[in-house]
Amino acid sequence: MNTLVNEQLLKEIIDQVIVECTAQTLSSLEAESSKKEIPVETSARHVHLCQKDVEALFGAGHQLTPARELSQPGQYLCEERVTVIGPKGTFEKVAVLGPARPESQVEISRTDARQLGVNAVLKESGDISGTPGVFLYSGKGMVQLDKGVIVARNHIHMTTADAQRLGVQDKQEVDVRIETDRPVTFHRVLVRVKDSFSLAMHIDFDEANAVGLPANAKGELIA
Amino acid sequence: MNTLVNEQLLKEIIDQVIVECTAQTLSSLEAESSKKEIPVETSARHVHLCQKDVEALFGAGHQLTPARELSQPGQYLCEERVTVIGPKGTFEKVAVLGPARPESQVEISRTDARQLGVNAVLKESGDISGTPGVFLYSGKGMVQLDKGVIVARNHIHMTTADAQRLGVQDKQEVDVRIETDRPVTFHRVLVRVKDSFSLAMHIDFDEANAVGLPANAKGELIA
Repeated sequence: MNTLVNEQLLKEIIDQVIVECTAQTLSSLEAESSKKEIPVETSARHVHLCQKDVEALFGAGHQLTPARELSQPGQYLCEERVTVIGPKGTFEKVAVLGPARPESQVEISRTDARQLGVNAVLKESGDISGTPGVFLYSGKGMVQLDKGVIVARNHIHMTTADAQRLGVQDKQEVDVRIETDRPVTFHRVLVRVKDSFSLAMHIDFDEANAVGLPANAKGELIA
Repeated sequence: MNTLVNEQLLKEIIDQVIVECTAQTLSSLEAESSKKEIPVETSARHVHLCQKDVEALFGAGHQLTPARELSQPGQYLCEERVTVIGPKGTFEKVAVLGPARPESQVEISRTDARQLGVNAVLKESGDISGTPGVFLYSGKGMVQLDKGVIVARNHIHMTTADAQRLGVQDKQEVDVRIETDRPVTFHRVLVRVKDSFSLAMHIDFDEANAVGLPANAKGELIA
């Protein structure tokens, strides 16, 4: 069956449909790119050492030996490993991260704290006031730390450009939702801005297990 | 200094103040009671046994011996304990929960799964299809489970009356926010309604550690 149509009207309708489809595509593309995705990495238990403790453990004049670069530029996993000794348990072959820092610091999860027999004190990395101590053993030397054992607050490393794009500031606390088969939103996640950083959220193994974190996971920043 | 006041006007003002204060108090009480608080409990690793496995482990005709009642009515911790043996590690003196169930089931965290050397499969309690097995040892007998090792999905037990008050239904998935120094919202938390239940959210040790769960913790249900 043929129907008479007004050709001009038909053309106008088709144009209108094209305009609307294009607008919809653009808006969904925009929604996608405005999703604030952050790579999420799990920090296993590890140790940072001051130069004095490096020498006490590995010998006078010893320098930490880089074995592998980490995601944060300038940071590396060392060839050196240590045993962490607490009142109730020990962990052998614990990773040492370089370079040397002003103060030694042992970063563990709450699960680890229970096994070692020390209090789990939640701290921002670098702040070791009021934290428990532990012994470190290298096979050659032993060091007693009076303090320095922390459960690290989860945080996001980012550059100034990342911060501008994501609309957040240094030291701001944000929410990050991670979508898995046991999805979780972490609240009060600390933003840390420095141009030498690389964009990544760091969580510990308890947090990673709680969310069932897969490899190459992403979280969505909710400011 | 004395001031002349219109007594009637003063009375009206006082009445008005009383009315407003009462309204404010009522509205803040209402806000408090409309906050949907759920007690949150941590499930440590534990084992449920079928009667056949009870007898294989503890002897023909053996019945599980209640040691202590649990928060869910009718459920109890048993005197009996078992060793859970995996390809890479073992856990000794693991709690057995009674009464006996149709199928044996071992509930562990992802941290435990890594130590045992088995896959961590997230499952609703009672669904053990496609899950790894493990050996159980009692000191008297050994049982090989072909399947039954699960990481339990977090969930909320509640009665029909709780469900009505909280505005949720059996099998609904809800969000629960827990406010600590590392606050977390758990998403897709499964609601399980049965009149023999007692109101409680159950999470595993990884989840409890991730949120730094204190004793007598409460979560806020966000439907």
